Amino acid sequence: MASKVVTACMIIIGNEILSGRTQDVNLNYLAKALNELGVRLMESRIVPDVESVIVNTVNECRANFDHVFTTGGIGPTHDDITAVCIAKAFDTEIVLHPEIVKMIESREAPPEVMASRMLMARVPEGSRLIENKTGGPPGFQIENVFVMAGVPAVMQAMVDSLDKERLEGGDPVRSRSIGAYLGESQVANALADIQNQHADVDIGSYPFFRQDGYGTNMVIRGTDEKELDEIKEKIRLMILSFGADPFEE
Amino acid sequence: MASKVVTACMIIIGNEILSGRTQDVNLNYLAKALNELGVRLMESRIVPDVESVIVNTVNECRANFDHVFTTGGIGPTHDDITAVCIAKAFDTEIVLHPEIVKMIESREAPPEVMASRMLMARVPEGSRLIENKTGGPPGFQIENVFVMAGVPAVMQAMVDSLDKERLEGGDPVRSRSIGAYLGESQVANALADIQNQHADVDIGSYPFFRQDGYGTNMVIRGTDEKELDEIKEKIRLMILSFGADPFEE
Repeated sequence: MASKVVTACMIIIGNEILSGRTQDVNLNYLAKALNELGVRLMESRIVPDVESVIVNTVNECRANFDHVFTTGGIGPTHDDITAVCIAKAFDTEIVLHPEIVKMIESREAPPEVMASRMLMARVPEGSRLIENKTGGPPGFQIENVFVMAGVPAVMQAMVDSLDKERLEGGDPVRSRSIGAYLGESQVANALADIQNQHADVDIGSYPFFRQDGYGTNMVIRGTDEKELDEIKEKIRLMILSFGADPFEE
Repeated sequence: MASKVVTACMIIIGNEILSGRTQDVNLNYLAKALNELGVRLMESRIVPDVESVIVNTVNECRANFDHVFTTGGIGPTHDDITAVCIAKAFDTEIVLHPEIVKMIESREAPPEVMASRMLMARVPEGSRLIENKTGGPPGFQIENVFVMAGVPAVMQAMVDSLDKERLEGGDPVRSRSIGAYLGESQVANALADIQNQHADVDIGSYPFFRQDGYGTNMVIRGTDEKELDEIKEKIRLMILSFGADPFEE
């Protein structure tokens, strides 16, 4: 029997992604980690550093998904407004977390710099911390919302600290891939038949164009490894029936 | 005077992004192109290949932004449901576009393959085509929604075919960058002061961590080049006042 599906939404906060200055790589990292933790990333929103947009997006998403993960906007400058927005979304107070305060105070700095750093100790009241092994301030979790840094190395350290217990994850999501030098139009009908036979598995088809020809990669995703192998074998036979050579990458 | 701000939202359609199989690069390409065309990318949604989600997202976004750009899901296989979803969102008929039909018929194929290919000729009634110089089927535009391919080379060709006239773009968005080996907490107050003096310009601050030290890159974005230069000079002087060397990359 399939276990309960635990769902997630990711909110990427930052003008730098929407302006094209920065290529986001955090979604891909989180997506892969969630597969292992048995959580399905169902949607993502990329939003600017605008309070009303962040507050509304967080409130919409936390109502619609089991978990919400945010990245970005937890530094000490004027464009770092995530912690305040999350507190507003939950209609709760923003407080200085004693553990983060202690961490920040342990590194000497002039009073003005210390005051700016202390902005990173702000969390909505009742938050639980998300460990940050890179040595900087931690992220935080309030109810089903996990608030993480935007800098990839820091974000990745925070994701790595999360475990299945904390996320109440289900069975890990596994995948199988198989490709062939056959156009998508050639495999379309046969592939649709196979998909129809396996409703709880997700079969995707992705065309590729290379110097030596064009073809299609097919990806099967689900939690039942036996079923995935069975489907992969069906696709392998389908490819052979068209006179092509199946390959794996 | 600032010209009217033309806004856009991007909808990335595809399980392969949310599963972590594929790293999206289309948003970054579109964002940069829109800067030049004088259109501001205000938000993005990444959604799965699920009809109800696509239809609702398209309807929400086309009401809230001047333009909506979608990528993905316009191929010939069972998971390519974008054209049908867009037609449903507009409550209009899906039709075979005679120009695309002609293009597809010009390449010989067995009847079954031809039938699958013909799925790529489907557009919502009243659509205008988006040229595809890579030689495959074009994208399409219905009202303020632009529907493009997910394969980056094809998506990029489609974006390149769009011009300022079609998008009714305003002044191009320009940026200036300046960095220093100063922590974000050191520059936070001075930077906030500068931001407060220039409300219609967006100043972002991005920490970096390198082998030779850590620092902050500051990015100024807006349409008035003179103002951007002026702000950059203020930041340069601010960096010098902290005894650090400003650099450009």
